[in-house]
Amino acid sequence: MSERMSTTTRERLVVAVSELLRVHGYSAITVKQITAAAQAPMGSLYHHFPHGKVQIAAEALRTSGAAYIQLLPLLMDPHEDLRVAVPAAFTEAARTLEESGWMNMCPVGTVAGEIADSEPLLREAAAEVMRDWIEKGTAYFHARGLPGPAARDLIVAILTTLEGAFILGRTLRSTEPLHAAGRAMAARIEAVVSEASTRGATVTTRVDSVPPVS
Amino acid sequence: MSERMSTTTRERLVVAVSELLRVHGYSAITVKQITAAAQAPMGSLYHHFPHGKVQIAAEALRTSGAAYIQLLPLLMDPHEDLRVAVPAAFTEAARTLEESGWMNMCPVGTVAGEIADSEPLLREAAAEVMRDWIEKGTAYFHARGLPGPAARDLIVAILTTLEGAFILGRTLRSTEPLHAAGRAMAARIEAVVSEASTRGATVTTRVDSVPPVS
Repeated sequence: MSERMSTTTRERLVVAVSELLRVHGYSAITVKQITAAAQAPMGSLYHHFPHGKVQIAAEALRTSGAAYIQLLPLLMDPHEDLRVAVPAAFTEAARTLEESGWMNMCPVGTVAGEIADSEPLLREAAAEVMRDWIEKGTAYFHARGLPGPAARDLIVAILTTLEGAFILGRTLRSTEPLHAAGRAMAARIEAVVSEASTRGATVTTRVDSVPPVS
Repeated sequence: MSERMSTTTRERLVVAVSELLRVHGYSAITVKQITAAAQAPMGSLYHHFPHGKVQIAAEALRTSGAAYIQLLPLLMDPHEDLRVAVPAAFTEAARTLEESGWMNMCPVGTVAGEIADSEPLLREAAAEVMRDWIEKGTAYFHARGLPGPAARDLIVAILTTLEGAFILGRTLRSTEPLHAAGRAMAARIEAVVSEASTRGATVTTRVDSVPPVS
């Protein structure tokens, strides 16, 4: 294996816990499972994460969360009109959910739902991820021509409906919730864009004028 | 205690597990915690629920779920116009969430998100609850004048955005996701009602014409 392809033990531990969180949630998994999945000695987990399970789970949520928000420009940029882009993203999510065999598409949301009342440190890590999504999403939609408050409202609504649709869709083994959510977002963005356009904003800017989400 | 006020051991067990699921999720709780919270002997749990934790959790989700859908007519009936009723319900949910100190408003959603990939029997119980919500909600909105498919689309979108908003709201300790979701639903219902009215349906029927959700 080349130097560049090798992963550190720390990275392997974070990937392992991310996958375990996706399938089993937080409470069901043990540090023993994590080290076994990462093929790492128990001592290495506590070496890299002295606070153990809660700390490595927080790191996994941050890492997954940072990757997910990169999908926003990837999904939106190809469409010049946001009124097309947003519903298309929900259609794409529905396709991915079904093709994956109803995989958990967002452990950040499910773990947050599971532990919000019982694990304050992990809840704060999930909140940090969600605040970052909202901040980057607001910047993205603002760069595409929406006024700041409308841009923020839109990304909050998108994240909210997406998380809910993942839960209902996985439970019901159905793409219907994502399609219903997509239609709701289509209606909302139509209203937001109309309102912004009335005020003279140019909402459907060209893709090349949009800065990357970083 | 009068005869009517007394609860059976079975009922106490179900109430206890419902509250534990709300705070801790499914995997974190033990049958010992359930019997302790219900002040019931361990044997009584297995007497009433031979399959143990998964069976009592399924029963708790069904009981909670049946109670939640009763809220739909309670929240909708006072408003003659659905375009007022739906956003008002989200505002009411935001108020309740904040006043409760960010309580888990729906263990059906959080438990489903936690166990959808790992506990097939419990997932099926959650799916059964959600299908019941969709069926009753479709009947309700149909009785209020929406064509069947639009009625179904609306209840699926409401449930989806509500579940997502509970997760983001509890994690961020903020009512913003519920308000953003409410605005999205307002836009969607405006579109649904306009479309139905164009086809000649009378959407905003009087409350007394609506059959109870049972």
